[in-house]
Amino acid sequence: MTYFVFCVHNHQPVGNFDHVIEDAYQSSYWPFLVSISKRPAIKLSLHNTGFLLDWIAEKHPEYIALLKTMVQRGQVEIVGGGYYEPVLSVIPEEDRIRQVVMFSDRIEELFGKRPRGIWLAERVWEPTHPSIIRKAGLEYLVVDDYHFLKAGLRKDQLGGYYTTEDQGNLIKIFPGNEALRYLVPFKGVEEFEAYMKSIDNGSFTRGSAAIYGDDGEKFGVWPGTSKWVFEEGWLEKFFDMIDKNLDWIKPSTLGEFLDHEEPVGHTYLPNTSYMEMGEWSLPADAARDYIDLIEEVNGWGESGERVKRFLQGGTWRNFLAKYPEANWMHKRMLMVSREVKKRRQLCSDKTQDAAERLLYQAQCNDAYWHGVFGGLYLPHLRTKVYECLIHAEKIVAPGSDFPEIFSSDLDADYHEETVMRTGDVSLFFSPFNGGTLVEFDCRRKGVNLSNTLTRWPEAYHRKLIERSKHEGIEAGAKSIHDIVKVKEEGLENYLKYDAKRRASLVDHFFPEDFTFEDFYSGSYKEEGSFSHQRYEKEVKDGCLTLSRKAQAFGKDVSVRKSIVFESADTFKVDYHVRSLSGAFEAKGFFGVEFNFLLPCCDGPVCKYEAKPVFDPDGNIGFGSAGEVKGITELSLIDEYTGVEAVIKLDGPAALLRHPIYTVSLSEGGFEKIFQGSCLLFLFPAAFFREGGFKTSFTVTTRAL
Amino acid sequence: MTYFVFCVHNHQPVGNFDHVIEDAYQSSYWPFLVSISKRPAIKLSLHNTGFLLDWIAEKHPEYIALLKTMVQRGQVEIVGGGYYEPVLSVIPEEDRIRQVVMFSDRIEELFGKRPRGIWLAERVWEPTHPSIIRKAGLEYLVVDDYHFLKAGLRKDQLGGYYTTEDQGNLIKIFPGNEALRYLVPFKGVEEFEAYMKSIDNGSFTRGSAAIYGDDGEKFGVWPGTSKWVFEEGWLEKFFDMIDKNLDWIKPSTLGEFLDHEEPVGHTYLPNTSYMEMGEWSLPADAARDYIDLIEEVNGWGESGERVKRFLQGGTWRNFLAKYPEANWMHKRMLMVSREVKKRRQLCSDKTQDAAERLLYQAQCNDAYWHGVFGGLYLPHLRTKVYECLIHAEKIVAPGSDFPEIFSSDLDADYHEETVMRTGDVSLFFSPFNGGTLVEFDCRRKGVNLSNTLTRWPEAYHRKLIERSKHEGIEAGAKSIHDIVKVKEEGLENYLKYDAKRRASLVDHFFPEDFTFEDFYSGSYKEEGSFSHQRYEKEVKDGCLTLSRKAQAFGKDVSVRKSIVFESADTFKVDYHVRSLSGAFEAKGFFGVEFNFLLPCCDGPVCKYEAKPVFDPDGNIGFGSAGEVKGITELSLIDEYTGVEAVIKLDGPAALLRHPIYTVSLSEGGFEKIFQGSCLLFLFPAAFFREGGFKTSFTVTTRAL
Repeated sequence: MTYFVFCVHNHQPVGNFDHVIEDAYQSSYWPFLVSISKRPAIKLSLHNTGFLLDWIAEKHPEYIALLKTMVQRGQVEIVGGGYYEPVLSVIPEEDRIRQVVMFSDRIEELFGKRPRGIWLAERVWEPTHPSIIRKAGLEYLVVDDYHFLKAGLRKDQLGGYYTTEDQGNLIKIFPGNEALRYLVPFKGVEEFEAYMKSIDNGSFTRGSAAIYGDDGEKFGVWPGTSKWVFEEGWLEKFFDMIDKNLDWIKPSTLGEFLDHEEPVGHTYLPNTSYMEMGEWSLPADAARDYIDLIEEVNGWGESGERVKRFLQGGTWRNFLAKYPEANWMHKRMLMVSREVKKRRQLCSDKTQDAAERLLYQAQCNDAYWHGVFGGLYLPHLRTKVYECLIHAEKIVAPGSDFPEIFSSDLDADYHEETVMRTGDVSLFFSPFNGGTLVEFDCRRKGVNLSNTLTRWPEAYHRKLIERSKHEGIEAGAKSIHDIVKVKEEGLENYLKYDAKRRASLVDHFFPEDFTFEDFYSGSYKEEGSFSHQRYEKEVKDGCLTLSRKAQAFGKDVSVRKSIVFESADTFKVDYHVRSLSGAFEAKGFFGVEFNFLLPCCDGPVCKYEAKPVFDPDGNIGFGSAGEVKGITELSLIDEYTGVEAVIKLDGPAALLRHPIYTVSLSEGGFEKIFQGSCLLFLFPAAFFREGGFKTSFTVTTRAL
Repeated sequence: MTYFVFCVHNHQPVGNFDHVIEDAYQSSYWPFLVSISKRPAIKLSLHNTGFLLDWIAEKHPEYIALLKTMVQRGQVEIVGGGYYEPVLSVIPEEDRIRQVVMFSDRIEELFGKRPRGIWLAERVWEPTHPSIIRKAGLEYLVVDDYHFLKAGLRKDQLGGYYTTEDQGNLIKIFPGNEALRYLVPFKGVEEFEAYMKSIDNGSFTRGSAAIYGDDGEKFGVWPGTSKWVFEEGWLEKFFDMIDKNLDWIKPSTLGEFLDHEEPVGHTYLPNTSYMEMGEWSLPADAARDYIDLIEEVNGWGESGERVKRFLQGGTWRNFLAKYPEANWMHKRMLMVSREVKKRRQLCSDKTQDAAERLLYQAQCNDAYWHGVFGGLYLPHLRTKVYECLIHAEKIVAPGSDFPEIFSSDLDADYHEETVMRTGDVSLFFSPFNGGTLVEFDCRRKGVNLSNTLTRWPEAYHRKLIERSKHEGIEAGAKSIHDIVKVKEEGLENYLKYDAKRRASLVDHFFPEDFTFEDFYSGSYKEEGSFSHQRYEKEVKDGCLTLSRKAQAFGKDVSVRKSIVFESADTFKVDYHVRSLSGAFEAKGFFGVEFNFLLPCCDGPVCKYEAKPVFDPDGNIGFGSAGEVKGITELSLIDEYTGVEAVIKLDGPAALLRHPIYTVSLSEGGFEKIFQGSCLLFLFPAAFFREGGFKTSFTVTTRAL
């Protein structure tokens, strides 16, 4: 008798587009469930993440109704988890337990039974999970066999579940079988049958169960699978095969299996996830070396297996070191979580619940990381995270017309940030990092206008370059991770990198021969030591002053910017740049850079403006002298979020602007994604003739 | 300017012999401190673990006095940590924080300053450490560069410290430099100078500090180092060299360095320890493969480095899966920790403090694991752990003449154990595991008589076998971990393995041709399905009954054992073995096995007794028929712990007994260690002619 333990996980990120979820529902979730419902002998442990389940309950009550009958007749076991599919280990412990309990409550409400098992988001295991899972009232989970191999176990020892514990809190852990993940649904059912036969013949030395735990999207959402699984009848053939062999194949849910079988051992898993996560989470240069090594080792046959057994990549948490944007979003989430808890006493239960639910939605993992399935590169997912965070924060800290100002090390970078917050706007400044504005929230709309993404190097970029050199060569049948597909040609031309995280109020001094191309490609030279350097901060009478004294054009120079709110929705930045060495002649430019997730030009693709030139009177223009006299006002409108930002200057500046495009890899291939607009306001450094220069930026946000 | 950041860690396990600590003090700790005290330019971050520091304070106040002056003049920074050097992640969170705070208090008391940094026991890193360390009021630590390499960083990026965090709790982490660990104190000082020069010339791409963090025992305790470091003047030459180069070498403590230098990056370490710990913690078969692979890869040059960068072994927690004895000790520690906390309200502060201190002493890491430096194989360390646990437990749960009986899954094996406890004796039974007695405490003396160790296979055993085949071949100059040294010849003859953890009241049915040699070597056959199988339990009127029905000699048989206390220090086990298939003829034996950490024969080495024979009347004897008529009483005396155990039978039994010797590897080479006595009481299975058989064991403990 060989068990077939079948566990499927369906997930859609918070913030995903409605039509994408509807497509997935129609092409996969619904037909899959219907198929199984007609096969009473097949058993299933099913996990739909909370956001998806709520979406289905609202849009497709027929799914819930059918699933409930299947639960009632014991065919389906519903698996729980963190409500909004957070990476458990990086959200506060209280939130972990609350999210799991909240989801268990919801499952009980819909299906009449509480779950006993948990789906672990992205299978990101940490050794303290058993305590959390037990505290939340659950008792088991399934991860990959990969986790167990990294604990030193052998594949032949993974025919059953193991026990593990933390602080004596015992849970049971299932090793999801890799061979099965490749067979189901991608190979002919006879191959699956042969594999089951091999287990029945004793291929495992511990246990004799085929344990499947994988994404439901493989049954219809992944490219080509809808046709294969449903139209061409793979799923029916699969169930036929099992139905025919019920004398020796025993379909089972995870829970049933536990109730009838003893554990095959006790173990402790290291903090790891599935194999690919180890590659994605490494720093880009290490990821490249790791990929090369894995590819090489894969060619070594038996000897390669000996090596691979002990190879490990990075851990999930490292995404927070790899992408400062992910770290910032994560630390903002922690900040909001603290605020929500702190003000618990002051709010009504209902208000508190609303704030908590928003917070938990913001903890959904997708936007915090990047792999083939990670969504940090998707602006709409990041936008949704900030929307939830800012709205939750607005509930517990509504703010007023007068700014509250406070400082603390919000992003755990060893240096304090300073927050200025009214009822309408929140500003987050990093004195240590160039005195820059790293987050700029329109609180009424729940929009972080600074929610852009830096052009970071990625290990896979070189594949794009290689591809551009070898066009026309047809790739063989490789796994989804290896095929070099592109969504448009010429993407390699967009591979430009930024040295530092994009922010606003970045102060530059550029040489005379500075060009737009240098700026766009990140290869410009600085004539000063200001951008991304430490600024001093002073808070006084509602005004934040950030200042730095350092060298520019070889002289001692001071840059001082003072930020005040003129009204709840409008702040003003007064700049004073002056020489500390008396008047001097400088050829070049002073520039103030802004980066916003807002369209700034002609839609998402904008024209690059030419090198600024100066007419004999010192006026600034573009292209040929005098053509444009410089700008003093700029309006940026985002119809998607319904926000307008207006920047006014008190004197003319040249403006260089370009869209920020990242190039990243997803299931569909390489793609470029618009991550916002970079605006560079330029001033001639000739002002040092007079010893200094003042200007100001007034920034207003409006809800459309 | 190149920093030399110097951090040294001195440790002695709780329970170590006085003379061993005195030797270490005289040959290393004291002369090392005196040397540095004469070199005011040298800076040192120094960690003495709490147990060692207290020992020194009591026996050698001159050390404390000198150290205090060095702290006062800013030459030495005292580093904190868990008071009794626990592996932080596996003790309860409250205990972690209390131990660290308690040690900070003690350091302040002795030296007038609280520590800012922590030494991490065995550098066992887990991602949640930053929260614990911050909660305990500290801010940094040093681990190995190995940890950072496993996070995907490169060696050239490790010239400074990094920040890391958990839940926003930020700490700073130093990568202890591997190259330095090999140079200091093992190579000529000119090699150290050349290495420092290479850093000064820019070998690091991030930072430019030489960060040393390693065991102080390398300076005089390790074999040969006393002569090299002190007699031959290495240390003086080392300090001379630094003193001579103070224009470009800047000695620093960890804390001073932090105060003057920015972090060089942010990262997240995986849960790992030093390289060798990865090897030791793996299951034995995986450890063997891992060692082979590392050795092979070491021969691949550059290409090997590419592979090694991503190789990882096991994690510390896996010792609890690898050694059931370590797991049991750990879970007992958790049980006592719960009891101490639960009864906090009921005790006076002083009593509570005493119980807590004993608990924390029992958390000292050494006895819970095994590597070259791990002490699970050392009975005196395990004995000390149990002594502390049992005494702590006695304080908070003194017990009475009447047994309290309770059941719960104490060892997190998914099955309940049952505890019977009087004021004098605690018994721990595992119904699931053969209804065996797994712990037997003499509470007055704080001795666990069951504290033996099973003969487990170890990856390194094959080296001993290889050595025995290649005697006389001289090994080259290899590291301490590779040299196959033995403390006595013929150790390979002691490589016998047990399939299951050693316990008492193990019920066996043996075939007629059963021999002592089979038993001793663990290769015997069972004629029944009882030993290590599941027993049913029943608790009634102060009596625990453990019973199982299964096959023996091909018939249905019942084994039933009832345990009652006759007085606080005496318990009786009534056995009833009977056929469920009527009377039958069986040739062979019924046996009850005990394993105790007690000498049982002629001192630790005992004679093996011969195959039991039966005289015509059915009496049992040894050797030639009738020579001994079987025994009915046995006294076991341990003068080390001051405990006597007396076992009385109500009828004669043959007794087979042998010492349990393990073969393990330590700094000094392979050694065999006495782990207690195995006693097997044998009865002729001829009793099935009458359908069954009754006997009883009465066990009394006495303090000598």
